[in-house]
Amino acid sequence: MSLLVTGSIGIDTVTTPHGTANDVLGGTAVNFAFAATLFSPVRLVGVVGEDFPDAFRTTLSKREIDLAGLETRKGSKTFRWTAKYEGAMAEAETLGVDLNVLAEHGPKVPADFADSEVVFLANTHPKLQQELLGQLAGTKLTVCDTMNLWIANERDELLRTLSMVDGVIINDGEARQLTQKHNLIDVAEVLLSYGPKFAVVKKGEHGALLMTADGPSVIPAYPTSRVVDPTGAGDSFAGGTLGYLSHSGDFSPANIKRAIVRGTVCASFVIEDFSINRMLEIKRKDVDDRVNKFCEMLRVD
Amino acid sequence: MSLLVTGSIGIDTVTTPHGTANDVLGGTAVNFAFAATLFSPVRLVGVVGEDFPDAFRTTLSKREIDLAGLETRKGSKTFRWTAKYEGAMAEAETLGVDLNVLAEHGPKVPADFADSEVVFLANTHPKLQQELLGQLAGTKLTVCDTMNLWIANERDELLRTLSMVDGVIINDGEARQLTQKHNLIDVAEVLLSYGPKFAVVKKGEHGALLMTADGPSVIPAYPTSRVVDPTGAGDSFAGGTLGYLSHSGDFSPANIKRAIVRGTVCASFVIEDFSINRMLEIKRKDVDDRVNKFCEMLRVD
Repeated sequence: MSLLVTGSIGIDTVTTPHGTANDVLGGTAVNFAFAATLFSPVRLVGVVGEDFPDAFRTTLSKREIDLAGLETRKGSKTFRWTAKYEGAMAEAETLGVDLNVLAEHGPKVPADFADSEVVFLANTHPKLQQELLGQLAGTKLTVCDTMNLWIANERDELLRTLSMVDGVIINDGEARQLTQKHNLIDVAEVLLSYGPKFAVVKKGEHGALLMTADGPSVIPAYPTSRVVDPTGAGDSFAGGTLGYLSHSGDFSPANIKRAIVRGTVCASFVIEDFSINRMLEIKRKDVDDRVNKFCEMLRVD
Repeated sequence: MSLLVTGSIGIDTVTTPHGTANDVLGGTAVNFAFAATLFSPVRLVGVVGEDFPDAFRTTLSKREIDLAGLETRKGSKTFRWTAKYEGAMAEAETLGVDLNVLAEHGPKVPADFADSEVVFLANTHPKLQQELLGQLAGTKLTVCDTMNLWIANERDELLRTLSMVDGVIINDGEARQLTQKHNLIDVAEVLLSYGPKFAVVKKGEHGALLMTADGPSVIPAYPTSRVVDPTGAGDSFAGGTLGYLSHSGDFSPANIKRAIVRGTVCASFVIEDFSINRMLEIKRKDVDDRVNKFCEMLRVD
């Protein structure tokens, strides 16, 4: 099935205990796309400024990413994010955000993309998520993410977005903030009450909880000690998950679980190096090998 | 195989958002035993004071717990612990500890128990753990737990205990404190370097990591929203794990994983009520039913 992602495309400067990566390719849609293309071609919808480096365009073209929806806006600048991780690298400390073009009007979905069947709306203003959905016809699976800013300031719009999508992938802290519940089963049940047919609550190094009408499932994170830069783990997780779902065209709870295992493995790769460097090195076979190892770890007979 | 546990037997007063349980049966060995006896009879070794209520003895005798190693020491008082959990109940706040008899000399292993094959040394002074091991002959599987106090103050003795046991079951915070590593794979590898053939790092609501010579495995916690009192979860986990191992007599990595699934399920029951109340209500079939449900959740084909 055709897979579309909308989200940020940015220039990141990230410092971790392993060093600093200056002005590297980043953004939610980028991390999503490099994971998703391990399973399925991706249509990218987003906006960058005139300063967006040609080298990044070349990097994006190394994978099956259709850039027809990548708008380069005249007179605007690309989104920039500067952050550092310390110690256990559990959380990024944002040192600077220049929204730049992201503070302007949103991207347009090209007419050729309007028939996209699987759609991921990465975190952005919930009204913009609704607008983007409105430009699509005949979607089969729509999934969104969000963040604390919109939960705090645009709750009603966010609930409206959630009532329009089939699934939500959200981190645990934000899911708790949104639902005002602590226990993750309770949290996930409230998320489903907003409308989605499934909810995936991401717990970082602790894995994820999937809630469907069938009840909860838990998927641990792939255990790894090779963590260079956690940036992009969540979006890579979403990308691997939806890339697999789009490839298989099966949205049953059992297959969503299979997809989440792929997403988890994609996340375990992206954190092994800065930016999407590691994703450029790996192939589908590397993912499959790790998926098999992971399934073996999870197997209890 | 015969299974022996040594650890505390106490009188707890615990407050959670669900209420207060005053002067109830508690202690590491007690929580261990009520989980373990779902799979295997247990030999209990520990000391209480003259004030230990007869009603608690009656409760202990409701399960296959051999009390020949339960010393009631004249002139001494039973260990008491008062604590409260707030909000998400992630951690107990200790309001009072009266070590009482636990501050005196340790218990003696009865001659009839010296041939015990599977042994769990719940958290206590590492020198006492060594003494207890010294009273046993022909053990097939010895496993210990420990706590921050001994890691900070009795590190050398603790490392000596670890060099004498086959396995360690320890929580993540304490394991990090002991190994001076953060990443749990690194932590578990250092634990194995101390001597044990396997290490189980408990992550509370996030499950556990098992490390053996075969590498790491991850087991999530059984997802539940019914949490009344988290007290005893860790010891119930250890009890279910070793009870199952003792029952099966198979200490292979694959079977340790099966055992941990049982331990996880035991922990998911004990937290559903105060003290060991819930454990008194359930039978092996309840555990098996939940194990099957959990394995189904974990299954990725």
